[in-house]
Amino acid sequence: MKPVVVRNIPRASQNVIAQLAGFGVSTVHEAMGRYGLMKPYMRPIWAGASVAGSAVTVLAQPGDNWMLHVAVEQCKPGDLLVVGVTTDNTDGMFGELIGTSLKARGVVGLVIDAGCRDVKPLTEMGFPVWSRAVSSKGTVKATLGSVNIPVVCAGAAVNPGDVIVADDDGVVVVPLKEAEEVAIKSAERVANEDEKRRRLASGELGLDMYKMREALEKAGLVYVEDASKLG
Amino acid sequence: MKPVVVRNIPRASQNVIAQLAGFGVSTVHEAMGRYGLMKPYMRPIWAGASVAGSAVTVLAQPGDNWMLHVAVEQCKPGDLLVVGVTTDNTDGMFGELIGTSLKARGVVGLVIDAGCRDVKPLTEMGFPVWSRAVSSKGTVKATLGSVNIPVVCAGAAVNPGDVIVADDDGVVVVPLKEAEEVAIKSAERVANEDEKRRRLASGELGLDMYKMREALEKAGLVYVEDASKLG
Amino acid sequence: MKPVVVRNIPRASQNVIAQLAGFGVSTVHEAMGRYGLMKPYMRPIWAGASVAGSAVTVLAQPGDNWMLHVAVEQCKPGDLLVVGVTTDNTDGMFGELIGTSLKARGVVGLVIDAGCRDVKPLTEMGFPVWSRAVSSKGTVKATLGSVNIPVVCAGAAVNPGDVIVADDDGVVVVPLKEAEEVAIKSAERVANEDEKRRRLASGELGLDMYKMREALEKAGLVYVEDASKLG
Amino acid sequence: MKPVVVRNIPRASQNVIAQLAGFGVSTVHEAMGRYGLMKPYMRPIWAGASVAGSAVTVLAQPGDNWMLHVAVEQCKPGDLLVVGVTTDNTDGMFGELIGTSLKARGVVGLVIDAGCRDVKPLTEMGFPVWSRAVSSKGTVKATLGSVNIPVVCAGAAVNPGDVIVADDDGVVVVPLKEAEEVAIKSAERVANEDEKRRRLASGELGLDMYKMREALEKAGLVYVEDASKLG
Amino acid sequence: MKPVVVRNIPRASQNVIAQLAGFGVSTVHEAMGRYGLMKPYMRPIWAGASVAGSAVTVLAQPGDNWMLHVAVEQCKPGDLLVVGVTTDNTDGMFGELIGTSLKARGVVGLVIDAGCRDVKPLTEMGFPVWSRAVSSKGTVKATLGSVNIPVVCAGAAVNPGDVIVADDDGVVVVPLKEAEEVAIKSAERVANEDEKRRRLASGELGLDMYKMREALEKAGLVYVEDASKLG
Amino acid sequence: MKPVVVRNIPRASQNVIAQLAGFGVSTVHEAMGRYGLMKPYMRPIWAGASVAGSAVTVLAQPGDNWMLHVAVEQCKPGDLLVVGVTTDNTDGMFGELIGTSLKARGVVGLVIDAGCRDVKPLTEMGFPVWSRAVSSKGTVKATLGSVNIPVVCAGAAVNPGDVIVADDDGVVVVPLKEAEEVAIKSAERVANEDEKRRRLASGELGLDMYKMREALEKAGLVYVEDASKLG
Repeated sequence: MKPVVVRNIPRASQNVIAQLAGFGVSTVHEAMGRYGLMKPYMRPIWAGASVAGSAVTVLAQPGDNWMLHVAVEQCKPGDLLVVGVTTDNTDGMFGELIGTSLKARGVVGLVIDAGCRDVKPLTEMGFPVWSRAVSSKGTVKATLGSVNIPVVCAGAAVNPGDVIVADDDGVVVVPLKEAEEVAIKSAERVANEDEKRRRLASGELGLDMYKMREALEKAGLVYVEDASKLG
Repeated sequence: MKPVVVRNIPRASQNVIAQLAGFGVSTVHEAMGRYGLMKPYMRPIWAGASVAGSAVTVLAQPGDNWMLHVAVEQCKPGDLLVVGVTTDNTDGMFGELIGTSLKARGVVGLVIDAGCRDVKPLTEMGFPVWSRAVSSKGTVKATLGSVNIPVVCAGAAVNPGDVIVADDDGVVVVPLKEAEEVAIKSAERVANEDEKRRRLASGELGLDMYKMREALEKAGLVYVEDASKLG
Repeated sequence: MKPVVVRNIPRASQNVIAQLAGFGVSTVHEAMGRYGLMKPYMRPIWAGASVAGSAVTVLAQPGDNWMLHVAVEQCKPGDLLVVGVTTDNTDGMFGELIGTSLKARGVVGLVIDAGCRDVKPLTEMGFPVWSRAVSSKGTVKATLGSVNIPVVCAGAAVNPGDVIVADDDGVVVVPLKEAEEVAIKSAERVANEDEKRRRLASGELGLDMYKMREALEKAGLVYVEDASKLG
Repeated sequence: MKPVVVRNIPRASQNVIAQLAGFGVSTVHEAMGRYGLMKPYMRPIWAGASVAGSAVTVLAQPGDNWMLHVAVEQCKPGDLLVVGVTTDNTDGMFGELIGTSLKARGVVGLVIDAGCRDVKPLTEMGFPVWSRAVSSKGTVKATLGSVNIPVVCAGAAVNPGDVIVADDDGVVVVPLKEAEEVAIKSAERVANEDEKRRRLASGELGLDMYKMREALEKAGLVYVEDASKLG
Repeated sequence: MKPVVVRNIPRASQNVIAQLAGFGVSTVHEAMGRYGLMKPYMRPIWAGASVAGSAVTVLAQPGDNWMLHVAVEQCKPGDLLVVGVTTDNTDGMFGELIGTSLKARGVVGLVIDAGCRDVKPLTEMGFPVWSRAVSSKGTVKATLGSVNIPVVCAGAAVNPGDVIVADDDGVVVVPLKEAEEVAIKSAERVANEDEKRRRLASGELGLDMYKMREALEKAGLVYVEDASKLG
Repeated sequence: MKPVVVRNIPRASQNVIAQLAGFGVSTVHEAMGRYGLMKPYMRPIWAGASVAGSAVTVLAQPGDNWMLHVAVEQCKPGDLLVVGVTTDNTDGMFGELIGTSLKARGVVGLVIDAGCRDVKPLTEMGFPVWSRAVSSKGTVKATLGSVNIPVVCAGAAVNPGDVIVADDDGVVVVPLKEAEEVAIKSAERVANEDEKRRRLASGELGLDMYKMREALEKAGLVYVEDASKLG
């Protein structure tokens, strides 16, 4: 694989992206059929952020953040930078300076399968980052990678232009061509959940609301009065 | 092992449970003789919660939260739901909807050896959760487990009705029949610590307060003036 | 290795230590030539603390905090206690009581390659701790270790009197004899970064500011217009 | 919990134990209803051993093997020593000397949720060990634990006298009172598998042999001719 | 994402596949430009196997091996089954029976991002498996996944028909359309390494053979006679 | 820290090194006072090797093996190469070619806190390696490190010229100036263990041989006849 930068990538409509941001990761992930989630070791560096954006992808070498500088130029307002690394690494590839640059270009956030540093200034400037580690470990600028090729980030396949949704629950990847449909299904799901929430809050049991009792009995679930009745 | 739900379990008195909640995990764990602690990978999804409750136990399959729905019905006010899983798993088995249902029934919290999602709404509704991961990963409802049988959760054995104490320091399991005695010992410990805290704050050394100097010397500890005196 | 306590250790000037605290971990680590960082599993128990101090070192046994009591006596105002353990361990070797004692002596913080407990009271009293885990697990006082010998803590070699800098980004060890030079280099770095930050915020690209384009081309980076142009 | 040694424990019949050893871990675990397995980090120090024995249990402190010496005296021929530790630990609590002692008493193997050392001599003397780590790390003899109380070992609850089955696939715990029934079910399973193996080896598909096609269709599985037919 | 089975997939020529098997993982990975490697937690269950085959891919649920049975039917002689799981899981999804079935169909091996059991019989029948764990943990057949869709396995993206090469060093994925070119480059590499090996064995230094001295000096490497010359 | 190569290092006598190799890691580690052991994640790539040698140390960058080539030139017969990395990394920094070069120079083995590849040819040529991972992941030659400076490798501090002992139990570091004394103490230990082994093999209990009964009683250990006697 030769190092390459792809300049033009497809992107979902800002309208769809905004909707997906509003639904949040858990709803979108369910609406997709429980697919596309990054591994749960990806955590936000500060709580409360909730964003969505078009993936500009980077494949970087461990301990080398050269390609992040290259990637900045390829970002447009509304994009979200996604960094995969060729091997497990926690070095602090991203910090305040590149964050300042990304923010100046209208990038909505960063998802990196490595480390992040400058947690305090990044929090103060309100730039959201999801990373596998917080680490000051400085990196070199010595070896090429690529920008805007398909990458694997935290166990999820990401294509340039996919919609990335990220919040306190984690990070999910919505394939570009499914984005619209997922937004519609997410909306249905939310509508449906409001009603469920109300009923559960009033004391109705999920067992009844979801009509699970018959299936449980059929599957063989047995109720006994107390432990003395156990085999 | 056949899937089973035990309807009636013994419970400690609310008075004892309230006392244990007040003492907190570290004190209770010491009062028990340094036993019964869950592994430290169990972390609260929001800081500051401090609760105790009677364990309603669930044994679930990885990636399957069917039995949580079953367990809700077995919970009474003051209970705390404890979920063990048959194999290591971080899927988001628990979220806002079941949380709403548990809260409606007066359950004081959840301890789950798997993932939790909907961190933001659960935090807003003040429902405390201790989990091994935060994850949106949706789960199925396909395979039975059991409710109110003895389980292992995060390395600790839990019997239905044991008192679970959980706060920012972690989660400890107090066997039901020891609960009263542990509360008494915890109270003694707290009384004793107030005095120690005052003395240490005034500058007295632990070496003197605990009278450790003689034992250290006997064990062979040697003091040298500086590094040049080392072999 | 015989158990030993070294009473007198060299220390950097309070002026240099205060400067290093102000620069923070990421800047200091870069100024040192990207060296001396502890592993990123070391996390603060509360966010926002930023300190530096002279290392008083402890080598402890797993699950045994006897030597922490011994070490307290060797601490002076402005010191920072660093605890290495002979084997991986997450037990709660440190809590509120020893914290009270350290604070009374003017110690600025604790770095421990094991567990910390009493997170809430330690946070309330504003005593900062960096640890590999939060755990209530009580420890014994049975086996000797040493105080003020060279130790390895979270992958970093620490000599007594080295300057430890710790903040939200992690923990870095500055060898005593390099402390002054590192402070100077850090100051240069900060001055330099202010200018960079301003330029990046105004939209200038790092590619141009750092003059990377030629080196990237030389290394073989290829730009293509879109994915259809990929091999 | 006070430190205690229980001298007399119940044991399964040698006949049942021998049968369970013959069936092996995977078969026994399935016959039990997929329950009782220790976590897969437990690995044999040498390949090919396959044993079963009555559990003599030890609860030890991290880095302290005092109670192993105490436990040896409680072992009878056909027993298998199971060591749980109060906190995660990989120290080499067990080695050739205690192995020699156990072998002299007719103990069939050791399962330890910590480290093992002297791998070479233990292999040469044919004493099988399942452990979470291989480590030379020496341990102290300073703090009491207990012998023959219920313990949690590698995520599984073990009661004294339970039958432990261990081979290259891992370690499973068969509760004493279920041992006979599990042996019967294991035998049925083995008989049944011989037939299955023959049919599969002859080219019959599991889909047909297990009659899965209807259920798969009902669950919604769709077959398409090639990738161009995907949405 | 709907559950689907794709019946027809493209495959590389048997000639190219055989060549890649002969070169081995490390050579092929280098020839590809250091790309496509699965994470190193993937280990063979027995040493010495070295295979290559066309990927038939499975996306499975944690603890559920239903789709493996479905996948067997899609395998042809020379194929290699690759199993990704929607979430981290170590359950023993694969064992002797499915192994027997795969062998009967001429499948050359299995790569699974989960657990494998029946290590002994699989070793005896010479069926090679690379897995993240060995575990007896039984699995259910309850929830659909897919066969022959793109999956992520152990951090690597795998498309149906890609050539998988696996040996004692690990597992590498060669994209179908690059397979021929990678075989050619691997052959060149091997030829080149034979010469290098001979020179190094004769005592020539890599520093000279690779002509590194000038680059090292330019990069700033300094030689000093002994430690007393260090700053 | 500037990149540097130190040409001349002190070394222990070959006689002492040979003795330490003969005693093995567990004995030497105990003779040192249970100190200096590398973490147990360091495993040999093939079983049965047992070596000792003078440490030539390397500090390398993650994913960069340039300094290994530099280090080869500094090795003399009887040396053992020790590679620390500035951050956690599993890349295959070492393989058959450098192994061939080291062997040609009489180097006795390699200890690397990263990955090793070419397991099969290295095994066939009988060159022993202890590493944290097996991985084909290729590395670059882009960034300098140092040779023969003090490093931390797998949690242990190593100075150039220290004696490294490695076998199936792990890796231990003997400080150069302690090597002779440790060899003497190891010899005493071995002599002492032969007698112990004989007595334990004859059925004598460790409890009696080590005269532990009184200390156990004093510490409060209680014996009860059976579980019914427990509180």
